[in-house]
Amino acid sequence: MGEFILANTSIIIRVELNHEKLTFGDVAAAISKSGGDITSIDVIRPGKDFSIRDITVEVADSLENTLVDALKKLDGIKVVNVSDRTFLVHLGGKITIQPTLPIKNRDDLSRVYTPGVAKVCMAIHENPEKAYSLTIKRNTVAVITDGTAVLGLGDIGAYAAAPVMEGKAMLFKQLANVDAFPICLDTQDTEEIIRTIKAISPIFGGINLEDISSPRCFEIETRLAQELDMPVFHDDQHGTAVVVIAGILNALKVVDKRIEDIRVVVNGIGAAGVSICKMLLSAGVQRLVPVDREGAIVRGGTYDQPMWQWLADQPQVEEHAGCLTDVLHGADVFIGVSRGNILKGVDIQTMAADPIVFAMANPQPEITPEEAIPHSRVYATGRSDYPNQINNVLVFPGLFRGALDCRARSINEPMKLAAARAIASVVTSAELNELYIIPSIFNDKVVDEVRKAVIQTAILTGVARRIPPEFR
Amino acid sequence: MGEFILANTSIIIRVELNHEKLTFGDVAAAISKSGGDITSIDVIRPGKDFSIRDITVEVADSLENTLVDALKKLDGIKVVNVSDRTFLVHLGGKITIQPTLPIKNRDDLSRVYTPGVAKVCMAIHENPEKAYSLTIKRNTVAVITDGTAVLGLGDIGAYAAAPVMEGKAMLFKQLANVDAFPICLDTQDTEEIIRTIKAISPIFGGINLEDISSPRCFEIETRLAQELDMPVFHDDQHGTAVVVIAGILNALKVVDKRIEDIRVVVNGIGAAGVSICKMLLSAGVQRLVPVDREGAIVRGGTYDQPMWQWLADQPQVEEHAGCLTDVLHGADVFIGVSRGNILKGVDIQTMAADPIVFAMANPQPEITPEEAIPHSRVYATGRSDYPNQINNVLVFPGLFRGALDCRARSINEPMKLAAARAIASVVTSAELNELYIIPSIFNDKVVDEVRKAVIQTAILTGVARRIPPEFR
Repeated sequence: MGEFILANTSIIIRVELNHEKLTFGDVAAAISKSGGDITSIDVIRPGKDFSIRDITVEVADSLENTLVDALKKLDGIKVVNVSDRTFLVHLGGKITIQPTLPIKNRDDLSRVYTPGVAKVCMAIHENPEKAYSLTIKRNTVAVITDGTAVLGLGDIGAYAAAPVMEGKAMLFKQLANVDAFPICLDTQDTEEIIRTIKAISPIFGGINLEDISSPRCFEIETRLAQELDMPVFHDDQHGTAVVVIAGILNALKVVDKRIEDIRVVVNGIGAAGVSICKMLLSAGVQRLVPVDREGAIVRGGTYDQPMWQWLADQPQVEEHAGCLTDVLHGADVFIGVSRGNILKGVDIQTMAADPIVFAMANPQPEITPEEAIPHSRVYATGRSDYPNQINNVLVFPGLFRGALDCRARSINEPMKLAAARAIASVVTSAELNELYIIPSIFNDKVVDEVRKAVIQTAILTGVARRIPPEFR
Repeated sequence: MGEFILANTSIIIRVELNHEKLTFGDVAAAISKSGGDITSIDVIRPGKDFSIRDITVEVADSLENTLVDALKKLDGIKVVNVSDRTFLVHLGGKITIQPTLPIKNRDDLSRVYTPGVAKVCMAIHENPEKAYSLTIKRNTVAVITDGTAVLGLGDIGAYAAAPVMEGKAMLFKQLANVDAFPICLDTQDTEEIIRTIKAISPIFGGINLEDISSPRCFEIETRLAQELDMPVFHDDQHGTAVVVIAGILNALKVVDKRIEDIRVVVNGIGAAGVSICKMLLSAGVQRLVPVDREGAIVRGGTYDQPMWQWLADQPQVEEHAGCLTDVLHGADVFIGVSRGNILKGVDIQTMAADPIVFAMANPQPEITPEEAIPHSRVYATGRSDYPNQINNVLVFPGLFRGALDCRARSINEPMKLAAARAIASVVTSAELNELYIIPSIFNDKVVDEVRKAVIQTAILTGVARRIPPEFR
């Protein structure tokens, strides 16, 4: 969940109006002048001299206070209350746990609970694999964070991270019918995180790690993948990487280049950057330039960070040192998962013909659309207010749906690549163009295509423990 | 969840009948002869010579195989399949996680997830107490076990314990609208259990420990209660104790004795026994005889087990040593949470007038109803097939409902005692008699009365962090 962009908010302002002193037109004018957009009005208490109304207003987050202050300054208005629709939808949390059947009488009780449940327990005790058929394990994923890298907000801790994890659980259910439960860890110690997740793993069929800061996320994910017999997936690393690869595959079709021929610069070698580099290599890229704050990571170099060293040992990584703007010369593709406003149009002009620019820093991309679009052929960001949004929501629902359905022991590199190809395939050749390389998250083909690709690849690579009927 | 009793099961037998060789009457006779009770018949495929039928049969667990074997031996029948309705209701697990609202469009998404969720996260980051209003914390309880003392089955491990925890989550929701999620721990190390539960605690508003073996359960619960700022409750200890005390309070009304005057023998000083002893003392018992395998624990004695030593230090505990049948002489109340068939009618005859006998060992009580009822005035067990069932389900839903509603920092002894009195109060004086000292778990007054008593007592004892409107 690396995504975080500047937002509008929807607020509900309850006002009491003195009709002798002002009209609703005056109020509407003041709202409009302060940058607000009225989307609905409800009259709560009508009256000849006074009325109370709820005015729903869309306004940029940054202008909310100014707008409310402007209203308060009007003569004849009393601002009774301001509620924020975003906060309203979070009240009491965003998920709930429901029984799958009602307990209507003692007979029902004796089946779902004691004494009847005892023989179900014993069946699992005798054959632990039965946990997949007789408990929620087969459809349940833990969405786990330590709160260290939440959205673009950084280390805000376990409590503050919960609304994001709940939002993710909602998406899991709505998009892929996966039961996901949020776990927010009150520890940031790598070993303790690993121990804790292993200890609570029996009820889950998969582990979705979320918003764990780099480089701890690498060790945590790698160790859990080795030590647990179930899918473990850090969304910030691989979710982003999968959807980036999907976008690159389609962008290459637009510019008519082959992946084997391109030179790719990846800027920002953190959680997402490392996974993007790995997947680019798996997908066939022959010339790769990973860049971090100290400049290009070069083949044969020596680095403290194990992931950087791994990259320096890859034959496809270039030998030439240099800062970002140096190495960008002649590149076919720029992928940024770093920080905002570090490139200008003149930098893109130094790239090869038909430049592909994925600028995914949040909240501001590495290069603004105003600077990038005149000089690039394909431009993508993490933001929903520009075309080509690179959004992890395209990945995790279908990926886990597939992994659960075939009881995958793990999520391997071929499965991720298959997911990327599946996402890319949802955009038909008739639809494909510079402004539409990636499907919408509301496109209902995405989950099913990703699921199918993941299951097929899990079966082929030998990590599926169950073959769903339609794949037999 | 100490409860476990012998059970009937409901099986569905699919048979193919050859009408030339036998009639359905022959089949029905064979089922009946093997101890089965036919509750429904569905004709799946009718036919002149052959038919296929589903026969639903109630049968004692222990007789299921004999019955099916008897059918197979009949000439002209083919047993196609036997499904067990208990297993059927467990398929895929018994709870599901649902979003509280649908994400219909990008606008909804931007509120429940990124980017809008960011300001909700920041509001909690600035004031962690807001986790109670803006996340699921205020209504969510973890049902946590390490699988060491599940039902009467013992140490069956984390995977096999899951169906019980899911069943408990169903009851939490249906009876008290509490969202409960099962956590089955893949560790039995006391310190690791404590660490793990603390680490995952931020998303939860309360911790219901379940089926953790004695004596580890004492340390785990005590430490968590000290180190976490939320209700922690080991149901096997205190759930049982609360409902026992409720039953004793009403039984004393039946026999017209005062709690200050009675002499009580508690046999089995494990998880539940210790908590029962403590609550009896809180409730005003002046003469207490705790008994374990080595005989009575006596005042002034020296014991290795810290809980036994604690008992030996209490002024209300008697000084006289002796085995169970010795110390039972002259007792007003026997409470057994030990093992089956250790007492006879002659032992009950040695008790004081109007003996009260709570025999709660599972699956067989300490004394059978046949032996006990002729000699005791009030007889109660953990079983649903005798009157006066002592069932934890009467306690935990209302207790946690109350604790969550007032954001209790802990569940203290007065709150438990208040819960016991509330349960007892649901049986009116007009209804009260030897065979009805405890309300049914389906009595819908129970949860509300327990909730109210718990909240009132939490407020009085200073552990409530929120006063619900109706208590202001």
